[in-house]
Amino acid sequence: MRYYVIISYDGSNYEGYGTQLHKNTVQDNLEETLTKLNKMVFVKTFASSRTDSKVHALNQYVQFELSIDYDINVLKVKLNKILPNDIYVKEVSILPENFNVRFDVVSKTYKYVINETLNPFTRNYATNVFVELDLKKMAEASKILIGKHDFSAFCGSQSNVKDKIREIYDITFDYEIFFGQKALIIRVVGNGFLYNMVRIIVGTLVQVGMNKIHFSKVKTILESKIRAPECITFPPQALFLEKIEF
Amino acid sequence: MRYYVIISYDGSNYEGYGTQLHKNTVQDNLEETLTKLNKMVFVKTFASSRTDSKVHALNQYVQFELSIDYDINVLKVKLNKILPNDIYVKEVSILPENFNVRFDVVSKTYKYVINETLNPFTRNYATNVFVELDLKKMAEASKILIGKHDFSAFCGSQSNVKDKIREIYDITFDYEIFFGQKALIIRVVGNGFLYNMVRIIVGTLVQVGMNKIHFSKVKTILESKIRAPECITFPPQALFLEKIEF
Repeated sequence: MRYYVIISYDGSNYEGYGTQLHKNTVQDNLEETLTKLNKMVFVKTFASSRTDSKVHALNQYVQFELSIDYDINVLKVKLNKILPNDIYVKEVSILPENFNVRFDVVSKTYKYVINETLNPFTRNYATNVFVELDLKKMAEASKILIGKHDFSAFCGSQSNVKDKIREIYDITFDYEIFFGQKALIIRVVGNGFLYNMVRIIVGTLVQVGMNKIHFSKVKTILESKIRAPECITFPPQALFLEKIEF
Repeated sequence: MRYYVIISYDGSNYEGYGTQLHKNTVQDNLEETLTKLNKMVFVKTFASSRTDSKVHALNQYVQFELSIDYDINVLKVKLNKILPNDIYVKEVSILPENFNVRFDVVSKTYKYVINETLNPFTRNYATNVFVELDLKKMAEASKILIGKHDFSAFCGSQSNVKDKIREIYDITFDYEIFFGQKALIIRVVGNGFLYNMVRIIVGTLVQVGMNKIHFSKVKTILESKIRAPECITFPPQALFLEKIEF
């Protein structure tokens, strides 16, 4: 039977979602667990998104096939019993015909959490920016990034993807209470993202908000298709894969 | 110069606040850091409250004397630079004459976080209770506990305190959003607490809310002054020292 699951995980102890040789990844833990429930026949999984080392997921979709038929509720309980307690299966469903969690993605929403003051409880879930940010200028810079563009200037150097055209649907800024503290939440919605792209976008927007880059310069950087030194890659632990739409 | 600090800490990696031989405690880390800032002359500290292993603090008060005079803002920066990132000094003040963070406490507020569903992000900050709790009955049981009583029946067996009379001022129940999820927050306010007392009170109230103990039985247990097997000690990681009033 083919299934898909919606999982959430605290990425703090993982070197990213996707399997890597000799590294502790979410995918490896999930596949190992599924294999145990499949009479030790290896289960390969496919996910909607590959999150970087330390990055978290609130709703990640993963599909796989098992040679044993489980009731979906039973499978959920069994998976959560075996998985480490920083990976949680929220939902198990039978994979519908013609549905693929990887190729049918319409949009992904990532959120990034910025705190103005240190907080020991958010050290693995936020980044600190100790100055007040100019949200108006950040919104102006965001308008330049929204749309279909070649995002080569906002791609980590380790990427080997050739097609660097992606579409950003929206970038929003909200203040929310996070662990008893007001936090700035930057959400980036797009059809897909390059390696480190969200973290570079956030790093660039924060530079704009700190008046270190004029927002209009973001257009020059985007069009140059070359990574600019001002476009800092912001730390991973504040990034959450929040939502996926199909 | 004598100072007091307000600190917050994530208790996950500590065997409690108070110093213990060969154990990693918050007090030991703080005293070690202060000693470094005091020309390596040992600095003894006194705190408002001793939190158990894994228990967190949002506002813990600690006083000490340094042989060097620091500007309070400089001292705050220096402390936070040296301290591990799960202990954070929120405020440094000069200790006023006739003020003692331990003996002048009027009330302490502890909060306990209960989640109805598993969440990998709150595994170190909440306890799961998978059934709906009857808050009305829990409130009835709370009324029995509020007031000045001998709390021997709600004290951990390892305690060697003789005077077990404490006064509970209030017990409240609120639903709050905690890491994107509705959580039940139980707050217990009192003039002081015995070893494990808040965790035993919460454990007992949850048994009442699950209809495993009738609320009126709490009166019998309290008056017996003997620990009842139904009065479970709830897990430590969901407990936060939230507020201290002087």
